[in-house]
Amino acid sequence: MDSVTLMKSFLEPESIALIGVSRQSGDGTNVLKNLLSYGYSGKIYPVNPNAEEIFGVKAYPNVRDIPDKVDLALLLTPRMTVPEIIRECARKGIKSVIVVAQGFAEADEGGKTLQQEITKIAAGSGLRIIGPNTFGVANAFKNLSTSFGALWKMKKIPVGTIAQSGFLFANIPQSMIVGKAVDLGNACDVSFADVLEYFEADPDIQLIAIYIESVKDINRFITVARRVAKKKPILALKGGRGESGLKLALSHTGSVMGRDEIWETVFKRCGIIRVEDIDELDDGIKTFLSLPLIRGKGLAVITYPFACGVLAVDACQKYHLELAKLSGETLEKLARLFPPWLSLGNPVDLTPPGFISGKDTKEAFRIILGLVLNDPNTDAVLFCVPSSRYGQIYAYSEIVNQYADEFSNKAIVGWFYGFDPYRESAIKYESKDKVAIYPTLERAIRAISRLVERYKFLNQVE
Amino acid sequence: MDSVTLMKSFLEPESIALIGVSRQSGDGTNVLKNLLSYGYSGKIYPVNPNAEEIFGVKAYPNVRDIPDKVDLALLLTPRMTVPEIIRECARKGIKSVIVVAQGFAEADEGGKTLQQEITKIAAGSGLRIIGPNTFGVANAFKNLSTSFGALWKMKKIPVGTIAQSGFLFANIPQSMIVGKAVDLGNACDVSFADVLEYFEADPDIQLIAIYIESVKDINRFITVARRVAKKKPILALKGGRGESGLKLALSHTGSVMGRDEIWETVFKRCGIIRVEDIDELDDGIKTFLSLPLIRGKGLAVITYPFACGVLAVDACQKYHLELAKLSGETLEKLARLFPPWLSLGNPVDLTPPGFISGKDTKEAFRIILGLVLNDPNTDAVLFCVPSSRYGQIYAYSEIVNQYADEFSNKAIVGWFYGFDPYRESAIKYESKDKVAIYPTLERAIRAISRLVERYKFLNQVE
Repeated sequence: MDSVTLMKSFLEPESIALIGVSRQSGDGTNVLKNLLSYGYSGKIYPVNPNAEEIFGVKAYPNVRDIPDKVDLALLLTPRMTVPEIIRECARKGIKSVIVVAQGFAEADEGGKTLQQEITKIAAGSGLRIIGPNTFGVANAFKNLSTSFGALWKMKKIPVGTIAQSGFLFANIPQSMIVGKAVDLGNACDVSFADVLEYFEADPDIQLIAIYIESVKDINRFITVARRVAKKKPILALKGGRGESGLKLALSHTGSVMGRDEIWETVFKRCGIIRVEDIDELDDGIKTFLSLPLIRGKGLAVITYPFACGVLAVDACQKYHLELAKLSGETLEKLARLFPPWLSLGNPVDLTPPGFISGKDTKEAFRIILGLVLNDPNTDAVLFCVPSSRYGQIYAYSEIVNQYADEFSNKAIVGWFYGFDPYRESAIKYESKDKVAIYPTLERAIRAISRLVERYKFLNQVE
Repeated sequence: MDSVTLMKSFLEPESIALIGVSRQSGDGTNVLKNLLSYGYSGKIYPVNPNAEEIFGVKAYPNVRDIPDKVDLALLLTPRMTVPEIIRECARKGIKSVIVVAQGFAEADEGGKTLQQEITKIAAGSGLRIIGPNTFGVANAFKNLSTSFGALWKMKKIPVGTIAQSGFLFANIPQSMIVGKAVDLGNACDVSFADVLEYFEADPDIQLIAIYIESVKDINRFITVARRVAKKKPILALKGGRGESGLKLALSHTGSVMGRDEIWETVFKRCGIIRVEDIDELDDGIKTFLSLPLIRGKGLAVITYPFACGVLAVDACQKYHLELAKLSGETLEKLARLFPPWLSLGNPVDLTPPGFISGKDTKEAFRIILGLVLNDPNTDAVLFCVPSSRYGQIYAYSEIVNQYADEFSNKAIVGWFYGFDPYRESAIKYESKDKVAIYPTLERAIRAISRLVERYKFLNQVE
C-alpha cells in the first residue's frame, strides 16, 4: 500500500471502531464523546462487552460483531490485551490500527517483547499500526481526533504535524493549531517517512512541523524528507540533544539513533529547518505562511529606541544575517528628516525626526519604511517600535500592511517595545497574514534568518 | 559629594527647573504636563522666555529669574545652547543638571567638542551632569519622570534600573515596571558606579537591572559593582556584543571599551548576572523577587506530556543544571501511583497515574509534587502541565502555593503547555509572589540556573 492510501485510512477514515472505549465521560477524556462533539461525520463503532450503547451510539461486544467494513481501529485497552485484539482486527479485515496503550518498548522487557509481537502480527497480516504509546491522529478537515484528551479547538490550518509524542501531536503549544497531526508514539510500524509522503501530496498542507526523537530507517527518512522539503518547508524540533536527553528519549519511545551532531547533518542535508525550541515552531509556522523567502542580501532595522538597534545588530550576528548597506539615494532622502549633525545609517533611528526635527513620528515612520523598502539593497525590514497601547502615534498597522502589498517580495517583521498583554497590536498588524510580529527581538531576527536558510536550500546556495 | 547625596538630588529633588519646556502639549511628550499628571509633589519651574505660564504653572524667562533654590535642572534645549545654559545653572547654584539633547559625542566632531566643553564646565563648577542624549530619571516613589515620553503607568516596585538608553530607562519592555530608573545617555559625568552606590543604600530597591554598552572608569565600576552585587542582585544586559554591535554602540553613546570576552570576565568577577536578552530581564526580576536562591544540587521535573521532560533535560544540559537523583524512598512512594512495568525516575511523567492507574490527575499531581519536594536531593521543581484553560483538572495553583509556603527554601517554577493568551493561569499561580511561571520551557530552566549562579557567587563556590 502506498503511503498516501495508507495514511488516508488513518487520517480520513469513513468508519472507526473504538475498542475498549469507556462508558464514563471522565474529564473530557472519552474519545467517543469527543468525536461526537467535534462533529466527526464517519461511522463510529464503540466496542465494549459491557454496554449496549455508549452516549447513544450502539456498542458491540467484539470487533468481529461489527456488521460493516471498518477503516480504522483505535485500541484503548491495556497492553496485555493488545496482541490478541490486533489479530481479531486483522481477521475482520481492518487494515489500520492505532495502539494507544503505554507499556511497550519504552517500558520494561515484557513491553519490548510485546512490541516485537505486534510488529510481527502486522507484518504477517498486512495490517499497519500507529503506536503503541500514542494519542493517534487528528484531522481538523474531518473533525476527527483520536486523542482521549479533548482538543480545545480544531482549526483547518495548512499545517501537518508529526510527533513522537502526544505533546505536539495535535497542537503547537501556544497557538493550539491543529490542521492534521499524527503522534507516532513508539513508531513500531508507521514512520515519519510514511506521513511525510502523505503530507507531500496533500493539497490541504503547506507546511510540516515535526517533533522527532529518533527514526528507525534513517536512509528512507533522508530520501523522503529531502524530496518533500523541496516542496514544503519542514520544521523539526529534536528532543534528546545531549547524552542525558538521548538516554531519556530512549526510555520515552524505546529507540535511539545517535549523537546530536549526526542529526545536525541529517537535517541540513534534507533541507529541514531545525528549530531551537518549542516556541520557534510557533514562530516558524507564522514565518513561512505569511512572509516571502529572501536571499538574505540585507536587513534594514527601523527602531524607535536606538538601543533596540544595537541589540538587533547583536542578534543579526548571532543568526548570521547581513545588515543592509543603504544606497546613497536612500541616505540622501532620509537625511531630509534628520538633523544635519546625525550620522545616518542602518539601523535607522526613528527618534530624531519626531523629537528633534519636529516631524510627526507616524509620518516619519511612513516615509522611512517606504525608503528602506525601495532600496535595492534590502530584502527584509525589522521595525522595533512601542506597541499601539501607547497611543495612536504608534499605530502603524495600516502603513505596514499597505507596504506589504506593494513590496510582496520583501519580508516585513516587527517587534513591539512595551506592554501589550492581549497582543492587541500584533493582531492588527498580522490580520492580513502578510506581516509577522514576534514576541521578542531575537525571535524576530531568528525568523528572518530562517527565510534566508530556506531560500538557500531551494536555490542550492552554500 | 557622595553618590547617595548626588543621586538623591537627581531622583528625589524637591524642585525642578524645566529649561526650554514647550507650551505645546504634543502627543503626551510634554514633560511638564506629564509631571502634573503623575502628581509630582515638588516645585516645578518652567523656563521659557515666550510664556508667562505653561499649563497653569508660572514660567520664568531665564533660570536666574527663579526666586527659589532649584535642586535639579532639566535641559530641553538644542545642543548649541547647552554650554551657556549649564554655566547659568552653575551661577544659579544648581548642582544637578540633566541634558536631554542629542548631537554630542554620539554624533559628529562638533558634538564631541560640545561634550568635552560641558564636561569641563561641570568639573570646574562642581555641578554634575546626567547625559547628554538622555531621557533623564524616573522615580515611581516620588511620582517623578523627566522623560518627555509619557509613562504608561508608574509602579513602586523594588527595582532600580540603570540604562545607557531611554529604552530600558523607565520600564522593562513587557512588564512596564518602573521603580527607580536612570538613563545615563552618553554618561559624560554621572556613571554606573554613582547610581549603583545610590541603589546599594536604598531600602526601596532590592534588585538592580542595567543596560550597558560601555563604561569609562572600568576599575571603579568593578569595585563598586562587586560590592553592591553581594547585597543585591544585579542583572546586566550588554548591548554591542560583536564587532558590528560594538561599532554601533560607539555611534550610540560615543564610547567603547573592548571585546565581548572582556565584558564576560568583568561580569563574572563582579557577580553580575549577565542576561541573554531583553526578556531575561523580565524573567530575572520575577525570579529574584519571588524565589529562594538554591545550591543547584538537583532539579526535579514533573511533566504531563513526557516529551516536555525530554526537552527540559535538553535545556538543563544547556544551562548546566543537574537533574535530581530521587531518593529510594521517594521512588518507592511514587511507584504506588504508577503501573509496575514503568521505570520510574526524574522527570516524573504525570500521564500514567491519570490515564493508566485511574487516579485523579489533580490528586496525583498533589502527591507527586509533595514527594519530590520532600526529597532531600531536590532543591528546585519544574512542572510542565497544560494551562488551566483546559479545565479544572489542570488548575493546580492552590496546591502549588501551599507547597511554596511549606518548602520555602526550594524553588518552584512552572511552564504551561497550551493556549493561555491572557496569562490567566500564570497570574493565579504567581499571585503570592512565591512561584514563578515562565513563558517558555527554556526560560524556566534558565531562570533556575540563575538562582544557582547567584547562590554560588554569594557562597564563593566555583
